[in-house]
Amino acid sequence: MPDYDRFLSPMGRQLHESAIRRMGTVVAKTHDLVSFAAGYPDSTAFPWEDLRAIASELLAGTDGTVLQYGPTRGHRPLLEAILGVLDGRGIKAHLDELMITSGSQQGLDLVARVLISPGDVVLVELPTYTGAIAAFKNMQAKLVGVEQDVDGINLEDLDAVLQRERVAGRTVKLLYLVPNFQNPTGLLLSVAKRQRLIEWAEQRDVLILEDDPYGVLYFDDVATEAETRPIRADDDRGRVIYLSTFSKTLAPGFRVAWMVAPPALIERFDTAKQSVDLTSGILDQRIVLEAVRRGVPERIAPQLRALYRRKRDVMEQALRAELGDRLTWPAPKGGFFFWATLPEGQDDLSLLERALEQRLVFVIGSAFYVDGTGHDKIRLSFSAPAPERLVEGVQRLARALQPALTQSNPA
Amino acid sequence: MPDYDRFLSPMGRQLHESAIRRMGTVVAKTHDLVSFAAGYPDSTAFPWEDLRAIASELLAGTDGTVLQYGPTRGHRPLLEAILGVLDGRGIKAHLDELMITSGSQQGLDLVARVLISPGDVVLVELPTYTGAIAAFKNMQAKLVGVEQDVDGINLEDLDAVLQRERVAGRTVKLLYLVPNFQNPTGLLLSVAKRQRLIEWAEQRDVLILEDDPYGVLYFDDVATEAETRPIRADDDRGRVIYLSTFSKTLAPGFRVAWMVAPPALIERFDTAKQSVDLTSGILDQRIVLEAVRRGVPERIAPQLRALYRRKRDVMEQALRAELGDRLTWPAPKGGFFFWATLPEGQDDLSLLERALEQRLVFVIGSAFYVDGTGHDKIRLSFSAPAPERLVEGVQRLARALQPALTQSNPA
Repeated sequence: MPDYDRFLSPMGRQLHESAIRRMGTVVAKTHDLVSFAAGYPDSTAFPWEDLRAIASELLAGTDGTVLQYGPTRGHRPLLEAILGVLDGRGIKAHLDELMITSGSQQGLDLVARVLISPGDVVLVELPTYTGAIAAFKNMQAKLVGVEQDVDGINLEDLDAVLQRERVAGRTVKLLYLVPNFQNPTGLLLSVAKRQRLIEWAEQRDVLILEDDPYGVLYFDDVATEAETRPIRADDDRGRVIYLSTFSKTLAPGFRVAWMVAPPALIERFDTAKQSVDLTSGILDQRIVLEAVRRGVPERIAPQLRALYRRKRDVMEQALRAELGDRLTWPAPKGGFFFWATLPEGQDDLSLLERALEQRLVFVIGSAFYVDGTGHDKIRLSFSAPAPERLVEGVQRLARALQPALTQSNPA
Repeated sequence: MPDYDRFLSPMGRQLHESAIRRMGTVVAKTHDLVSFAAGYPDSTAFPWEDLRAIASELLAGTDGTVLQYGPTRGHRPLLEAILGVLDGRGIKAHLDELMITSGSQQGLDLVARVLISPGDVVLVELPTYTGAIAAFKNMQAKLVGVEQDVDGINLEDLDAVLQRERVAGRTVKLLYLVPNFQNPTGLLLSVAKRQRLIEWAEQRDVLILEDDPYGVLYFDDVATEAETRPIRADDDRGRVIYLSTFSKTLAPGFRVAWMVAPPALIERFDTAKQSVDLTSGILDQRIVLEAVRRGVPERIAPQLRALYRRKRDVMEQALRAELGDRLTWPAPKGGFFFWATLPEGQDDLSLLERALEQRLVFVIGSAFYVDGTGHDKIRLSFSAPAPERLVEGVQRLARALQPALTQSNPA
């Protein structure tokens, strides 16, 4: 057999593997595992009955286009329906600023392809979403981290980092942000900072890539809908590319997400997508469209908020009871994640090894950092497991966190 | 607003637009158009009843994973089922050589990303599939064409072109082929040439990318199943990457295709796909799996062969009757296309303009050539339109082909 390494491109050689995706392989193989790893939504909350009825109607065979190839930019009526969804979030957009993507991950990939040259700097939060790290690294971007405060990215550090990179002669085109209930920290970017970011982007000639999968999932005891207003809603300077998805408000299996960008860029993303996958799943788009027309996402959104708020409560109580003296975490105001700081002297990788012995998995903090730090952090997703499994998982975490001296070593 | 061109990467600047995708936009806008453009399967032949029953059962809500995120490499039971499909085509493969792609187009894109460095040569047939041209051009490959005979790629020219490129100092890693009922020519690569290609690839240290969407759709009056045996079936040298899809045997709206490659490459493609779209549509994969388990593709394959053979007959009779004195074409032995040569002095682009006036669209021949030629060719897809529309379309083509002197100029 040939040595296939000889055939790889530089990109093929340097591919960045997603820590979360790798975890998924572990999860699939271990019996009775509690997974705090992947940020999966709770499948019991998917609107099964609606989706079943919709699929059945669509597959009656009276409309052949339901299973046919479709336009690269997306099914036109779905695009029109998404304009309404955007309007509900304060975003006034036009059809020529919108396209469907096969998950938000494809949006990240298209942005990386069309905008990033090898060596270009992409500014990201410290820590940031691993899927964005992978998409940009695979286009050979240089990822540079910016500090976060409890109210989101630190604007002074942001500007200092930008200036430093530009003085060093590097091209900085893009800032990637998850303003609502960030992955992995769960932090919410303050309204004041959102306003200032648009001005900053204009002043410094940078584009902002705003990734918003979780905005709808705020916890109404600690956050309001107004606080989740996208940066794009107030962007009159054409500085923001906005990504969102139905993965968290309907179901991720559909791979139906969207991107809002200036028309000149949408044209490029559309052309790139032609050679990437021709078109996103058509049946998926049609099912999602019918669900939106029937008001399903709006109807279930309050239920989802209540569900994840209850899970947060269960998780937080368990963490306080079992680990309140050893872990610290910022209170998440929405979304799927607790972001915990480990006790002095513990590190994420060896804790994960001990957790796996206890049949518990989470994502190591360092996977979310582009500067090699984060070994004192772990991300605990509470979205998918049932409440009793959340408690069980925290108990396993507590056992794994026993000091190394008394460490048990089960078979 | 910013000048967004300043933000584009070299890739973003040089994106190659698919001629066929662009046609799609025209089709959507014109009333009473006959389209010979896109190679869409006939949606009346989709197994609607089976798919409806399957979707309804899957969406009963008893299995949450049906709409959840899934493994990047694909739903494991579907991968296992595809091994059976491959076995039916003579291909013995293992699980670690297989992955799901979001359409074969994603397979082309992943191969381009992982294997092609800017300036690398990809050898392609003259003419070849536009989606492959776009995928490779977008990774800045240099595409070099090889002549085709009626029994497929010309092996002497292939070797001469390879040697010429290597002497010129260029890296040639890959030959892209559509052996069965090629897009756009409809030609079938002979069995003898298939054997010799494996030896050639080994001798010249080249990989072959074999794209096989149409193999099942042979016309049994002029071709046999044995003649469609994939090159990969006899590849004991690890030289062939094989792509195929359910788009033509079930329905394209699902975006479920697959790739067979050596395990070392599958690992790379898998890692690349993580940052491209995380996972292909899960509901789609589950529906396709159930359809395969129930034997739907095998059951409908003979019906599809008969259907497209009948359409070929209608098209060919109409072409002979209306245009037999002006067009020539090789008899397609399967698949979706007539590949016609225009009379002396006519060219594809101006004919397309006149055809659009007659409310007919097709794909210009030059879109399939990487050497700037092909202006004396047009591709006529007969797969999607109803028989009477095929006849109507050919009549319109005949009117469009009137010599320029008597050209009409309707409003």
